[in-house]
Amino acid sequence: MTVNRVLGIDPGSRVMGWGIVEEISGVAKLVDCGAIRATDKDFACRMGLIFKELNAIVQLHKPTVAAVENVFTAKNPASALKLGQARGVALAACAANDVKVFSYEPTKIKQTIVGGGRAAKEQVAFMVAQILGVKKPNWALDTSDALAAAVCHLNTSRFAKYL
Amino acid sequence: MTVNRVLGIDPGSRVMGWGIVEEISGVAKLVDCGAIRATDKDFACRMGLIFKELNAIVQLHKPTVAAVENVFTAKNPASALKLGQARGVALAACAANDVKVFSYEPTKIKQTIVGGGRAAKEQVAFMVAQILGVKKPNWALDTSDALAAAVCHLNTSRFAKYL
Repeated sequence: MTVNRVLGIDPGSRVMGWGIVEEISGVAKLVDCGAIRATDKDFACRMGLIFKELNAIVQLHKPTVAAVENVFTAKNPASALKLGQARGVALAACAANDVKVFSYEPTKIKQTIVGGGRAAKEQVAFMVAQILGVKKPNWALDTSDALAAAVCHLNTSRFAKYL
Repeated sequence: MTVNRVLGIDPGSRVMGWGIVEEISGVAKLVDCGAIRATDKDFACRMGLIFKELNAIVQLHKPTVAAVENVFTAKNPASALKLGQARGVALAACAANDVKVFSYEPTKIKQTIVGGGRAAKEQVAFMVAQILGVKKPNWALDTSDALAAAVCHLNTSRFAKYL
């Protein structure tokens, strides 16, 4: 029996979606998921909170790998930079616990889950729920995006044949 | 006697300069400084290492506040994003230890230390050494930039009158 436990992360400086997906004997199952909400006005405080919460999640669930969405730079450099700082915190929380990180472009994730790189977040959420066999999920879109990254990793990794 | 212990940080994804400057009864003194060098090919591993080292520095030296350089976005969005991710890690390492972070534009730091916003790094290093009374320092430029951020904070904070 092969167990592959993936932590998917959708980086954000105010809301960071996360989801743990486990593949046991070829079937992908949801383990746990949620969204870290950082409400402090102070940007550094938000980064500190995100680190601590993500660190606790990694230490609790002990994922074997992490799948983290890449950040676009094109449209708005200033907001990309905020997102980038949050992404750095996510990478550090994984790597400081020796969890290897794989990066995926948002279009690649959408392509893998829905079949089209420009799919709406709601479509992604619907398909992720189907794949994981979750009926009527109550996920924030940040959470379903994080789960999508995790499922994308399972699908593109060598375990793809079992999915 | 008022003690103000500032951790200055010059963010970088391969080299992160840091320096602790203490102000005791109006005189700024160097406590310790260095540069974290992250050589791993894997970007996330570099972020993990930087977090762990900076976290250890914060816990050892217990700064009262931190001063961290801002990141430019204008010239090269891709490298700004790398720098941004490293900066996020620096903020998290401070804030996770309840160290308040102040952000300074590079031009503001240069202006404060040298008197001109476009000064060369070598000029900044020379002036920082003068201010801290260090003869023939053997600092990397990342380290002197970090010390400059710390001195800039002391100078612009309410303790400025003592400098």
